[in-house]
Amino acid sequence: MANSKYEYVKSFEQPDLLLPNTWIVIRIDGRGFHKFSDKYAFKKPNDRRALDLMNAAAERVLIELPDVVVAYGISDEYSFVLHRSCTLFERRSSKLVTTIVSMFSAYYVHLWPSFFPYSPLTFPLPGFDGRAVQYPTVQNLRDYMSWRQVDCHINNLYNTTFWTLIQQGGMDAKAAEAELAGTLAADKNEILFSRFGMNYNNEPDIYKKGSIVFRDYELVEATTSSPALNEEALTAPEIALSKTQAEKERKARQKAKVVVQHVDFIKDDFWEQRPWILSNRPGKIKREP
Amino acid sequence: MANSKYEYVKSFEQPDLLLPNTWIVIRIDGRGFHKFSDKYAFKKPNDRRALDLMNAAAERVLIELPDVVVAYGISDEYSFVLHRSCTLFERRSSKLVTTIVSMFSAYYVHLWPSFFPYSPLTFPLPGFDGRAVQYPTVQNLRDYMSWRQVDCHINNLYNTTFWTLIQQGGMDAKAAEAELAGTLAADKNEILFSRFGMNYNNEPDIYKKGSIVFRDYELVEATTSSPALNEEALTAPEIALSKTQAEKERKARQKAKVVVQHVDFIKDDFWEQRPWILSNRPGKIKREP
Amino acid sequence: MANSKYEYVKSFEQPDLLLPNTWIVIRIDGRGFHKFSDKYAFKKPNDRRALDLMNAAAERVLIELPDVVVAYGISDEYSFVLHRSCTLFERRSSKLVTTIVSMFSAYYVHLWPSFFPYSPLTFPLPGFDGRAVQYPTVQNLRDYMSWRQVDCHINNLYNTTFWTLIQQGGMDAKAAEAELAGTLAADKNEILFSRFGMNYNNEPDIYKKGSIVFRDYELVEATTSSPALNEEALTAPEIALSKTQAEKERKARQKAKVVVQHVDFIKDDFWEQRPWILSNRPGKIKREP
Amino acid sequence: MANSKYEYVKSFEQPDLLLPNTWIVIRIDGRGFHKFSDKYAFKKPNDRRALDLMNAAAERVLIELPDVVVAYGISDEYSFVLHRSCTLFERRSSKLVTTIVSMFSAYYVHLWPSFFPYSPLTFPLPGFDGRAVQYPTVQNLRDYMSWRQVDCHINNLYNTTFWTLIQQGGMDAKAAEAELAGTLAADKNEILFSRFGMNYNNEPDIYKKGSIVFRDYELVEATTSSPALNEEALTAPEIALSKTQAEKERKARQKAKVVVQHVDFIKDDFWEQRPWILSNRPGKIKREP
Repeated sequence: MANSKYEYVKSFEQPDLLLPNTWIVIRIDGRGFHKFSDKYAFKKPNDRRALDLMNAAAERVLIELPDVVVAYGISDEYSFVLHRSCTLFERRSSKLVTTIVSMFSAYYVHLWPSFFPYSPLTFPLPGFDGRAVQYPTVQNLRDYMSWRQVDCHINNLYNTTFWTLIQQGGMDAKAAEAELAGTLAADKNEILFSRFGMNYNNEPDIYKKGSIVFRDYELVEATTSSPALNEEALTAPEIALSKTQAEKERKARQKAKVVVQHVDFIKDDFWEQRPWILSNRPGKIKREP
Repeated sequence: MANSKYEYVKSFEQPDLLLPNTWIVIRIDGRGFHKFSDKYAFKKPNDRRALDLMNAAAERVLIELPDVVVAYGISDEYSFVLHRSCTLFERRSSKLVTTIVSMFSAYYVHLWPSFFPYSPLTFPLPGFDGRAVQYPTVQNLRDYMSWRQVDCHINNLYNTTFWTLIQQGGMDAKAAEAELAGTLAADKNEILFSRFGMNYNNEPDIYKKGSIVFRDYELVEATTSSPALNEEALTAPEIALSKTQAEKERKARQKAKVVVQHVDFIKDDFWEQRPWILSNRPGKIKREP
Repeated sequence: MANSKYEYVKSFEQPDLLLPNTWIVIRIDGRGFHKFSDKYAFKKPNDRRALDLMNAAAERVLIELPDVVVAYGISDEYSFVLHRSCTLFERRSSKLVTTIVSMFSAYYVHLWPSFFPYSPLTFPLPGFDGRAVQYPTVQNLRDYMSWRQVDCHINNLYNTTFWTLIQQGGMDAKAAEAELAGTLAADKNEILFSRFGMNYNNEPDIYKKGSIVFRDYELVEATTSSPALNEEALTAPEIALSKTQAEKERKARQKAKVVVQHVDFIKDDFWEQRPWILSNRPGKIKREP
Repeated sequence: MANSKYEYVKSFEQPDLLLPNTWIVIRIDGRGFHKFSDKYAFKKPNDRRALDLMNAAAERVLIELPDVVVAYGISDEYSFVLHRSCTLFERRSSKLVTTIVSMFSAYYVHLWPSFFPYSPLTFPLPGFDGRAVQYPTVQNLRDYMSWRQVDCHINNLYNTTFWTLIQQGGMDAKAAEAELAGTLAADKNEILFSRFGMNYNNEPDIYKKGSIVFRDYELVEATTSSPALNEEALTAPEIALSKTQAEKERKARQKAKVVVQHVDFIKDDFWEQRPWILSNRPGKIKREP
């Protein structure tokens, strides 16, 4: 029974290669997480266990996929950045996106009991969707990252004030929403401080700044000509590596420790001190203290 | 802190809408399942528990996504078919593919202990990748399905003979491979029968025919003008439904029982007796016996 | 001086193959033809010379590209239909579109003096843009064609009334526009008839119905089972031709006379009497009278 | 007669937006120019009239489309470069490609009699196809340009030697081909010099270097920090212009003289002295001598 009669159907598969030499951001979002967070009684405005679970799943993605140079998560979303030189799966979009979504979903479900030991998962299970976006320059990529971190700040300040008005101020959701309509950041800070004695700046960084995941090496002192700001250094063809060299560096990256931090990366400092993130070339292994 | 400075990065998202009025096949494949099946000592040539787990995960996809009209699985792959009239997620390719891959991966990992109670999963976890393919006609779609079922047959006959030569014939892999080089189906049947007294026809259907998953209704008697073969009936604009009607039918489909069968669907009979699969219009609910 | 150092740039070319087994419509539109028609003082509401020039250019496209089965033109737009079985240029979208746009533009400019002998072209020259759209079924394709012919009717009735109000009624554009705001087809017919003694039905068919271009063979008597309405007959794999047979038919098509007609093709008759258009199989050569 | 019944067909149009912030190269190629050049007896290895006609058509493209910053032509191909900041037609790929192909084809046919006054065009007319390719960095773009100019050199040296062997050496094509098989550049130079007393370096630059078309301003003295090599300067968001400013600069570009030159642009000098090409910001208008 030969299969040749039907094999023509393979010709309907259409290529979906991403453009070479662009930064690839794979962004995933929880499906129906509003309902899901109610079902498992997530704490408001932030549930530390839920964020830690997201971060644990993201860490696994970086550990298993050395092509991911950095990831950033807030709430039920995570953005994974593949280096512009990445050739994994020939840069096939659906293969890249589904691999990361599958991995993240599997770890989220598998690790759930470690973070929610008293709330076993029931059907329907949580899930994530994802998409790939390409950014041609370091500037575009950093602006994407900054966009997400500013969003984290805006949302968290709003949510913190909203839930404080409800939980400590005794308002219902409608009243709290009305109270906040049209307020600026300073107004919200003031509400928290004057009415509830709460200094927003003292809130945990994981809520205010989100979570950035990367391979950690020894910090580098920032200089004016640091590569984090230098498109050319990052795109010059001379740094194209031989296959052997690339494979060697890939393995070096696999040895680096993957860490989760909650810091500002809108300013240049973060990138200048960690040039290995955007260059994708291994840094100096940290000496243990 | 307004976010407008960075929001331009949203304009880099590119649309990926699938063409209207085409059949969408979402095909997923296990990532590195050769190694994975060794790690958990899957039985060769077929591990019934592993197939049952795949089928259980696929059933959940049909239960949670009424837009999936039928699915077919063999080995570590599964194909999910969305009806040509499907408008889920505006037919965005990456959203459709990642939703199904995420769901399948989550259930695979979550249900694993039910099927492999003595082999807890360790890192790295199993995962799947996926892609979407569009088919313009019923004939193309059925040819795709037939292609997969013929592949199931070819692979299973080969693998059954190969592993029988090893397990019962005492050959090593290399010798078994050499023995089978250039053989036709009849030759393999003969090897099994004359050397090992094994009639391939008596092998379980789940191995020989794979697993087809669909919503079950009362069978319809096939007639010469049956809609399964009639492109026109399935594409005529008159059957376009009002939103209310479409929603109603969507709910009706959610009530139907999802079943897994191991039957031939290359011939017309399967489709003629189950016109609801390709028409996507609910059939008559089966009376309990 | 070897070129290998730079050849990597070829890898940035991305494939743009259209889906197999879909009808391809290449639609072209005049660029800035409002201004262009003023510059050369086209007659309003219709300039017969300009339409004849469009049709002459379209005829050349059908003569030089046997894969185009039918074309339809109104005003400064033309739609060219490639058969669902077309494999020209491996169905590369940009190659198909640019070839037709280039050919049409070249003939439009080259043939201009034959139709506008007293108005030589000056810079900037006229031009066209184009795009490809795919339709999975005969019904979708015929609905596209009907959409354009209904548009022709709606626009021509409006323009005829608008310009009659100006040219014979002495109105200015603003007044004519106001007069027609909110009117139905019957109202416009009535304005033409009662105020200007003009029966819209007697207007030339080229203005009312546009121009359809196709290869002409002996008409076939329409029957109830005629293939024009039968998706299956047109998509059945049995009619897939051998390469030799396909090449033979391609040459037969090149011998058929290409004609321009101004007839209704919204009803079934047109397609039933000319089954060769949608089947793309040569009909019976017309006997000369 | 409302058109709403058919308007659903518009939903089959699929977006084809090019990625923001990438360099767009629209490359066009003559269709069947081997046969075409025989039909009109083009001189071998180069026909100056044919190249001048190509250049004249390309000049018109730059004059009519200020978004094109530079173009390069050899033989029957031309590459048009749109600046990375270009937003013409919302960066719709097919609209950009067809507009340029249409314009080029129209001018080629229209200007033909000025360059070939004794060879009127007959059917079939010449035509061009085209495609768009995106390049994320200045380096990638310059490598594309260099690739084409190296190709020009390689092809022209080969063709010059090949045709000299035939025209002056009395060989037939087969013998000339055999003679050149495996030869390096130095060998071909030597054949030309020792057998035919011909110094390849003295051949006209238009044949050796091709034709580059751009807007001309006063040359700038190159410095080490010149922007031609500086990705950052060219991509920094600070240089994003207001709409008014952008429109003003667009008009300034339209006033600049478009020139055709035959010079090396593989080295940095060309770009450093003409920073306006890659910055797309008008230079200083040249004083007439």
